[in-house]
Amino acid sequence: MSVIAELSIFPMDKGTSMSPYVARVVTVIKQSGLAYDFGSMGTTMEGEWDEVMQTVSACYKELEQDCDRIYLTLKVDSRKSRKNGLKGKTESVAAKLR
Amino acid sequence: MSVIAELSIFPMDKGTSMSPYVARVVTVIKQSGLAYDFGSMGTTMEGEWDEVMQTVSACYKELEQDCDRIYLTLKVDSRKSRKNGLKGKTESVAAKLR
Amino acid sequence: MSVIAELSIFPMDKGTSMSPYVARVVTVIKQSGLAYDFGSMGTTMEGEWDEVMQTVSACYKELEQDCDRIYLTLKVDSRKSRKNGLKGKTESVAAKLR
Amino acid sequence: MSVIAELSIFPMDKGTSMSPYVARVVTVIKQSGLAYDFGSMGTTMEGEWDEVMQTVSACYKELEQDCDRIYLTLKVDSRKSRKNGLKGKTESVAAKLR
Repeated sequence: MSVIAELSIFPMDKGTSMSPYVARVVTVIKQSGLAYDFGSMGTTMEGEWDEVMQTVSACYKELEQDCDRIYLTLKVDSRKSRKNGLKGKTESVAAKLR
Repeated sequence: MSVIAELSIFPMDKGTSMSPYVARVVTVIKQSGLAYDFGSMGTTMEGEWDEVMQTVSACYKELEQDCDRIYLTLKVDSRKSRKNGLKGKTESVAAKLR
Repeated sequence: MSVIAELSIFPMDKGTSMSPYVARVVTVIKQSGLAYDFGSMGTTMEGEWDEVMQTVSACYKELEQDCDRIYLTLKVDSRKSRKNGLKGKTESVAAKLR
Repeated sequence: MSVIAELSIFPMDKGTSMSPYVARVVTVIKQSGLAYDFGSMGTTMEGEWDEVMQTVSACYKELEQDCDRIYLTLKVDSRKSRKNGLKGKTESVAAKLR
């Protein structure tokens, strides 16, 4: 299965300046070796279920070190036999835009 | 940390009759032994991060057996030193309702 | 269409004590007259699209009065010809639980 | 307030080929005139609350014409006095990446 997962995660106990925490999370995702795409509302990655979820856990544990309250949303679209879905999904829609 | 996680998961390739698939997922959550609460838009469970995520993975793998496309959303509120959060969160709000 | 919508909304600039803000939001939903169900990770309501979205906007505007940063997630399952979906969806699953 | 909203919306009654429906939704967002960013797991837009929510409603009503069951998730980060948040949020994180 090609698992495409969009992760948004941030501390709720550190005020409104989130970017240092988000940067730490994106660094964990970069170091995972998974294909990823970093956006304004979350970071999307693609891989097999177990490796994607291991990376999600690594992101959580990165913040858990010094954050006492954490909010996280994850959105997954998993599809058998899909190849290169991170790019393919947007290209397939772009080709149909009026 | 008390990890409260709301999971919504369903196949995208099986038509619009979702309840048999949702029932399989809720059965997996029941069998996990975690505290849980089953609602119309998702099932909420509470535990430590690793046991909650193992249960989420077990739900996914239950459906992956016969579903070729799966959609999943997960929403997590994790808080240090919280006890009995599943009940406590709603009671704390209910006490403040006008 | 029966629109079932789960709303989670909270300020990001008020520390970690969310229940006073959540109570204000739930009060707005109660006063809307829509069928609703209040849970630990969000409040689910049911109605027609326009009335549900008006209520979501009223919740947002309630917090916008004194909050400078707000986070919100909304999850909607909309279905033609469904009656009493808030109760019906859970009953349909419960009947299939092993 | 700068409202950044990520919308994911698709029919649940049309099989697994979602791109024609997603293309119709992205077209509605393009025509709204809002700043937007189109990704593999949703489309992010930025504006004032009312104009963003009007666009979300227009997307829903586009699909409601011929879809009998629709699933939608919306994630909003709203912040007072933010300018050009769609670009600014990612730049602020990118500057901190190790």
